[in-house]
Amino acid sequence: MESVKSQSYEVHINELAKAALNQHVAQKKYSKVFLLVDENTKEHCLPVLKNIFDGPVDAILEIASGEENKHIRTCLQLWEELSQLDGDRKSLLINLGGGVLTDMGGFVASTFKRGIDFINIPTTLLSMVDASIGGKTGVDLGSLKNQIGVINQPQMVLIFPEFLKTLDSRQTKSGYAEMLKHGLIQNKEYWKELTLEGNFAEAGCIQKSIAIKNEVVMQDPTEQGLRKILNYGHTLGHAIESYCLDNPNRTTLLHGEAIAVGMILEGYLSHELRGLSKLDLDEIKMGFLQHFDRVEFTEDDIDAILKLLKYDKKNSHGNVNFVLLQAIGEAVTDIKVPEELFHKAFAYYSE
Amino acid sequence: MESVKSQSYEVHINELAKAALNQHVAQKKYSKVFLLVDENTKEHCLPVLKNIFDGPVDAILEIASGEENKHIRTCLQLWEELSQLDGDRKSLLINLGGGVLTDMGGFVASTFKRGIDFINIPTTLLSMVDASIGGKTGVDLGSLKNQIGVINQPQMVLIFPEFLKTLDSRQTKSGYAEMLKHGLIQNKEYWKELTLEGNFAEAGCIQKSIAIKNEVVMQDPTEQGLRKILNYGHTLGHAIESYCLDNPNRTTLLHGEAIAVGMILEGYLSHELRGLSKLDLDEIKMGFLQHFDRVEFTEDDIDAILKLLKYDKKNSHGNVNFVLLQAIGEAVTDIKVPEELFHKAFAYYSE
Repeated sequence: MESVKSQSYEVHINELAKAALNQHVAQKKYSKVFLLVDENTKEHCLPVLKNIFDGPVDAILEIASGEENKHIRTCLQLWEELSQLDGDRKSLLINLGGGVLTDMGGFVASTFKRGIDFINIPTTLLSMVDASIGGKTGVDLGSLKNQIGVINQPQMVLIFPEFLKTLDSRQTKSGYAEMLKHGLIQNKEYWKELTLEGNFAEAGCIQKSIAIKNEVVMQDPTEQGLRKILNYGHTLGHAIESYCLDNPNRTTLLHGEAIAVGMILEGYLSHELRGLSKLDLDEIKMGFLQHFDRVEFTEDDIDAILKLLKYDKKNSHGNVNFVLLQAIGEAVTDIKVPEELFHKAFAYYSE
Repeated sequence: MESVKSQSYEVHINELAKAALNQHVAQKKYSKVFLLVDENTKEHCLPVLKNIFDGPVDAILEIASGEENKHIRTCLQLWEELSQLDGDRKSLLINLGGGVLTDMGGFVASTFKRGIDFINIPTTLLSMVDASIGGKTGVDLGSLKNQIGVINQPQMVLIFPEFLKTLDSRQTKSGYAEMLKHGLIQNKEYWKELTLEGNFAEAGCIQKSIAIKNEVVMQDPTEQGLRKILNYGHTLGHAIESYCLDNPNRTTLLHGEAIAVGMILEGYLSHELRGLSKLDLDEIKMGFLQHFDRVEFTEDDIDAILKLLKYDKKNSHGNVNFVLLQAIGEAVTDIKVPEELFHKAFAYYSE
């Protein structure tokens, strides 16, 4: 499986990943090799990694899984451990886990002794196809996501689809939503392939998604323009995700589940405002509903979600800018949406 | 006074600094301008800055001065304040203070929302001639200095020697020791000028010191080789500084006072091991003792300092590498020193 060349590093898959890891660590002569896990990856992924990585590991650091631990306090604990374990500037940190772990481990490595090398081994589908590209590292500040962090590239990212066998299907589908987004914004053929074929959690599809995200990021490394298209489905999706998270009467949605709803809603806005055909729109709706249960929204829910949407964007003078589709595979950015269309979009979603 | 071009930014002095600051802020159209001060710079430097900077300041953030506050907790407080004040990615942070404040403010700016612009206005002689170049930002981790940080360049560094009038002479002399070091490692003429003339706290000398440090850093941005010469006097100097800090029976030495002793001691080692002439050695000793009181050391003190020296360097297999001088203005790195010479060096210092 072909590797993907990103800014200063490569994303390798399966056999190439194994070879790249062992070769890199042997060549670099690190003073210490540290491995970061959480209780889940310690149980399910570490035994697999032991068959992949030949080199010695000097110490295993463990953090508790979950977004609620993605905090500077956890970083402080890790910095102190690295220091007590005699970590120096020639140490390596290998991050084995989902997006929370790789974001936080990347930040800890980027700031320990003004920066040590790190390697990311994402273990969820979402982190393989999303967090693996772009060099974003960081932690939350209270309830504000990713407020503290740096942009810094890992030495390499290694993808072993084998790890996905340890996830439940709801977790895997959450990553699938991001993969479908890659098709919708950039590559119609890939969208078709994903919706028609059953098995998306395999190396070929993962590689294609990574390559699409990478192409976008490489064309716009500083997030000035094109990169915004990666936000398709996320404007309404984030508001829905936050609403369900903060409302005790609602089941919490996974990130992918929320943006799946967002992508149907923003598909409808695309049809109304940017000429996305009714055929394409219905294909998008069916594509998602085939895998994701329809979520029920009352009028009160919708009003609360739209309020959140406006509050979230208060810095841009109350205007909400959307990424919309002209066709499947063709995204446009910075589109303002009249308020009355939002209710129509929810009506279409519920039909 | 000519500006000094560093990695991605310039160091401007006096009138040019004033012009550069006002022009930059006017052009960049920052969403918010934040100013970071401590209780000292708020009282003594802020009134002066008001006559220099025309632009509006949206909020002044204040921290407590002193190395003991150079901690991640202070950063957390600053990140939270920036967030509450609606700081976004297009905000600017201006750091007005000594090295502790500019190191910490630079780190907070480099990590807030994955990095916002910052400008450093050092207000002590030490921070003008030392912290102004190299892009080092960071905070301490417990008693370990600068363990957490990143290398990141400010938009510009602005030098106003006028601020030095607000410092006591002991503080100013601490910066003078680093300036003398710049002469010793790179430029004999500058050393002569500094030791013969009385007024080192003026724009011309400050500019020369910055230019020397910059030349070294630019030739070795990743600290692989040449940059080590900036460590002259610091190996023994740091051990002496730590010893006096941790020992309740000793007066605490300022950084410059400790490395002044270190530079005489390492001058002696240079004479013994690298052929530094006796004439140069005596000139170095006289140059420092002219401004810095001789510090008394008992045999017990010396033993404790040498123990610290070895403990500090435990990662390099117990060997202590020194930067030594072949002549005034010519430094060499990575020299191992036989243990018996240390006591002789202290004896020479006390003569």
